[in-house]
Amino acid sequence: MIPPDHPRYRSLVARERLASCAREGVVTPEGLAAHGRGEAFDYLIGERTTESALLAERVAAAMLLSARAPVISVNGNTAALAAGAIAGLQAASRARVEVNLFHRTEERVEKVTRLLESAGVEVLRGRAEPLLPLSHARALCLREGIFSADTVLVPLEDGDRCEALVGMGKRVIAIDLNPLSRTARAATLTVVDELTRALPNITAACREITPGEGERLMGSLDHTFFLRAALDEMRGYLEHALD
Amino acid sequence: MIPPDHPRYRSLVARERLASCAREGVVTPEGLAAHGRGEAFDYLIGERTTESALLAERVAAAMLLSARAPVISVNGNTAALAAGAIAGLQAASRARVEVNLFHRTEERVEKVTRLLESAGVEVLRGRAEPLLPLSHARALCLREGIFSADTVLVPLEDGDRCEALVGMGKRVIAIDLNPLSRTARAATLTVVDELTRALPNITAACREITPGEGERLMGSLDHTFFLRAALDEMRGYLEHALD
Repeated sequence: MIPPDHPRYRSLVARERLASCAREGVVTPEGLAAHGRGEAFDYLIGERTTESALLAERVAAAMLLSARAPVISVNGNTAALAAGAIAGLQAASRARVEVNLFHRTEERVEKVTRLLESAGVEVLRGRAEPLLPLSHARALCLREGIFSADTVLVPLEDGDRCEALVGMGKRVIAIDLNPLSRTARAATLTVVDELTRALPNITAACREITPGEGERLMGSLDHTFFLRAALDEMRGYLEHALD
Repeated sequence: MIPPDHPRYRSLVARERLASCAREGVVTPEGLAAHGRGEAFDYLIGERTTESALLAERVAAAMLLSARAPVISVNGNTAALAAGAIAGLQAASRARVEVNLFHRTEERVEKVTRLLESAGVEVLRGRAEPLLPLSHARALCLREGIFSADTVLVPLEDGDRCEALVGMGKRVIAIDLNPLSRTARAATLTVVDELTRALPNITAACREITPGEGERLMGSLDHTFFLRAALDEMRGYLEHALD
């Protein structure tokens, strides 16, 4: 048991939760290592939502609200850490939710789907087809889900897939703690924040912003600004870390 | 199969190796996440041995050579990634090697021991006793190993245990990619470098340095300097990363 007053309580709980989901097969070994990379970058932004990330989260909400067909693409780590938050965002944004796994087996898709459903998410089901310009199982998605979407929210996505979605003309919102990852660079908008902080912020913004504000927010979208702002936070942290 | 000319070949091979050792029970889910954190910091020093790390590796070699009873403490990740390199360092430094696991079960100790022995490491065996000032299974170590050591090399150690060893008056050499971790701060000397690069460098230095040079190197040991140098590398990387 981690004491709730531990300064890094949230981070340690997330780590335990992922390890336990790995034992159940929802999360892969590769997913655990990817989570560790995220933890390191989160540490460098002080394990809090920065001002620029909060703005990016409002822009993300505006993009989802103005979309014709928004889809949230959920992988094992996202389901393990944030099934409830996905349910909340789905309700606020009317987005479809599709399970899309890097290490895809039908058994894992089913496990992740059930985990999401038990948290109140309405998960798109159907027969996946090789519709993405990627090789093998990674090309699979649902025709009425990601394939037809104009805007896709990809929390914790890998670089190839993010680039493929952008190449198909979609607006891609990534949530990625590494502002230098291929995903972060390729996305239309990258929210550099930790998943379980970012999703509720996007949900709250979906409920708050008016159509006029949404248009202004999207007009101000400067992807590179958000990446630079995150890098500046990290540099500032490293500069004073040993003081 | 990862193509050998991939720019991040070594990093990707290490990740695959750890995932496969996790499936065998040598590496824990927590170990995978810890590896991911290390990968992120390695990325920020350019996935190469920096000049200051190379100097730290020479100091580490001098410390091992001048020790009365040097011990290398090996955990699951270290065995998975660097069993052969541990054998090389043992030969060059005459250090004892003890298996010491954070998530300790006798079954895992045996698995890690066999993995090391198959790579040519002579592993200290015996009945572990609760000799470290830590709780439960984490207090266990061998009387003729870590307990009697004056100098302990701990690649990838956790903060509590590093602090406990220092508190017992031992000289502790850590290999840790996060210069801000409790381990890195508590150790007598921290090598901020990736394990499979650091170990062969320490081994080579063990074979090269003369007793006189060893004394000079240890006289120049400034732990904070090495941590600051690593932080400066990371800041410099972040500054130019988007150029």
